[in-house]
Amino acid sequence: MEKKGRTEIADLGEFGLIDRLTGSFGKGNPSTVTGVGDDAAVLAPAEGDAVLCSSDTMFEGVDFDLTYFPLKHLGYKAVTAGVSDILAMNGTPEQIMISLGVSAKLSVEALDALYEGIAFACREHRIDLVGGDTKSSMTGLVLGITAIGSASRERVVYRSGAQRHDLVCITGNLGAAYMGLRLLEREKRVLENVTNPEPQFEGYEYLLEKYLKPRPRTDIIEALAEERIVPTAMIDLSDGLSSDLLQICKASKCGVRIYLDRIPIARQTTALAEEMHVDPVVAALHGGQDYELLFTVPLEMREQVMRLGLVDVIGHITDAEAGACLVTPDGAEIRLRAQGFPERN
Amino acid sequence: MEKKGRTEIADLGEFGLIDRLTGSFGKGNPSTVTGVGDDAAVLAPAEGDAVLCSSDTMFEGVDFDLTYFPLKHLGYKAVTAGVSDILAMNGTPEQIMISLGVSAKLSVEALDALYEGIAFACREHRIDLVGGDTKSSMTGLVLGITAIGSASRERVVYRSGAQRHDLVCITGNLGAAYMGLRLLEREKRVLENVTNPEPQFEGYEYLLEKYLKPRPRTDIIEALAEERIVPTAMIDLSDGLSSDLLQICKASKCGVRIYLDRIPIARQTTALAEEMHVDPVVAALHGGQDYELLFTVPLEMREQVMRLGLVDVIGHITDAEAGACLVTPDGAEIRLRAQGFPERN
Repeated sequence: MEKKGRTEIADLGEFGLIDRLTGSFGKGNPSTVTGVGDDAAVLAPAEGDAVLCSSDTMFEGVDFDLTYFPLKHLGYKAVTAGVSDILAMNGTPEQIMISLGVSAKLSVEALDALYEGIAFACREHRIDLVGGDTKSSMTGLVLGITAIGSASRERVVYRSGAQRHDLVCITGNLGAAYMGLRLLEREKRVLENVTNPEPQFEGYEYLLEKYLKPRPRTDIIEALAEERIVPTAMIDLSDGLSSDLLQICKASKCGVRIYLDRIPIARQTTALAEEMHVDPVVAALHGGQDYELLFTVPLEMREQVMRLGLVDVIGHITDAEAGACLVTPDGAEIRLRAQGFPERN
Repeated sequence: MEKKGRTEIADLGEFGLIDRLTGSFGKGNPSTVTGVGDDAAVLAPAEGDAVLCSSDTMFEGVDFDLTYFPLKHLGYKAVTAGVSDILAMNGTPEQIMISLGVSAKLSVEALDALYEGIAFACREHRIDLVGGDTKSSMTGLVLGITAIGSASRERVVYRSGAQRHDLVCITGNLGAAYMGLRLLEREKRVLENVTNPEPQFEGYEYLLEKYLKPRPRTDIIEALAEERIVPTAMIDLSDGLSSDLLQICKASKCGVRIYLDRIPIARQTTALAEEMHVDPVVAALHGGQDYELLFTVPLEMREQVMRLGLVDVIGHITDAEAGACLVTPDGAEIRLRAQGFPERN
């Protein structure tokens, strides 16, 4: 699709802009009564269902850098961030609201691209866009994301249900999103003053995809339901394994013991980490933004969980007194510490 | 309460900060299953109820100026903005989520004040705080507000139900919040380089209150329910009478005719408008942020509505072809135009 010209946001006005951006969204979920266009969205949850609701914000300059983050991908990632919270409660994501704060430097065409990504993610995950507003921001682009979903009340999974001896399971692999970010930052620095920059991403495409276009693990929640597994606790890995595990320990009043050599790390993650003199384990523990799921199940469910073929068991829950620790291959124990997504320079 | 010292946000960390700010919030509504502290809030709506959900954002430098907007009032106003959207659907507000983007210039004590205002509003309107996150923002303070409420499905009121001959009703009076803002901006300019500024607000306290601490019209929704009046259409007056009326006309595919001399304007609004050479009617039509309610009812409900004692009838709904117009006392007709909250200099 060729970009033709540039339309200023002021030319459309707030309401014209909202119509243009959201006009083509339909509604598909039976619980969606109305979509965009009233003071509030109206939802009709199925009888006996719990309604799940989460809110996130993404700030330009903190959560993304528009010099290398394509707006279409940003729209997709915003939906992923919201959807992932609902999945982490063992719920089915159904609706989303996106509020924008936009600076005048963005054209209407740029916002079209953002909404293309939002629409793509909504179709992929069968989610209805049901609201949100658009305002001018004095500074950078800000996205406010409200995700809504449902689950039958007895199947909602909290952070607080982990029990001693439970297995600690994670999906996918860790640290890839963080190394994707590091790669993008490196190429940005290297090519800062180059006229026709040609960033070198060869061999690391998977890392870029994990950072720029992470997919929420809807497949896991569906597979758990099929196998009739209800985890005792669950959280999505958005802050990093270490920090997110500590959240489970705090909420469940327990300790945890995980084994370094069981933490799944992708080959590209290890390769780039070595090239950049970063410890891949640090990326896995503290990188964050992987949007994988971490959950616990009773010990006796081991076989059932392994049968899913989608999950690694990396440790088990202990008494609170034992604390949270990482065991290295030579048997040394390292205490886990919280640490968010490392700040960029 | 005396302020003692200054605690930096970095000293507490993200999770310590959230605990401090939200730790004292309880839950009171039967539909609130869990509050703050998981991936998503869990709600259990009553059987047959519709769930209402709205999202708003407030940006420093656009929606508020911290040089004169006390943080406690800002917290209160954020809740009002959310609650007002739920009321405008004829719903009962029950939960709220507040996401913050905070710059390092704010201390923990400043955020305490913000949350004091949020807590005050939550108690006043029996609302549970059920979520939200806190992040650093590179720029100013940003508040993301998600409000949730409920209504029995047949009592939800949309913008789209206004019918020809319906009466156009509004609560309270208009333009006061806008004149409050103008007053604060004037005093800020006048006192910019004064060492011990003493702003002159005497006689205009009501205007400041309407701008800094607007109360959502929960009383109206309760009174309508008591009188068994279900409006045909409703919207909250956040963008200004003119713009909000046009939203009703667009959604209901109708026109409207309102009478200038019936628009309620408070004495302080008129007085300050004259002092500042502003047309008070312009303030009422385009000022916005009054958080009053505008609704329509069938003509035959006139007496019932007047009995409420809280409402003014300012006009009636017409065919779409007639457009939206304001009739002056001498019979001239002026076409209504959308115009948001005027930009400040």
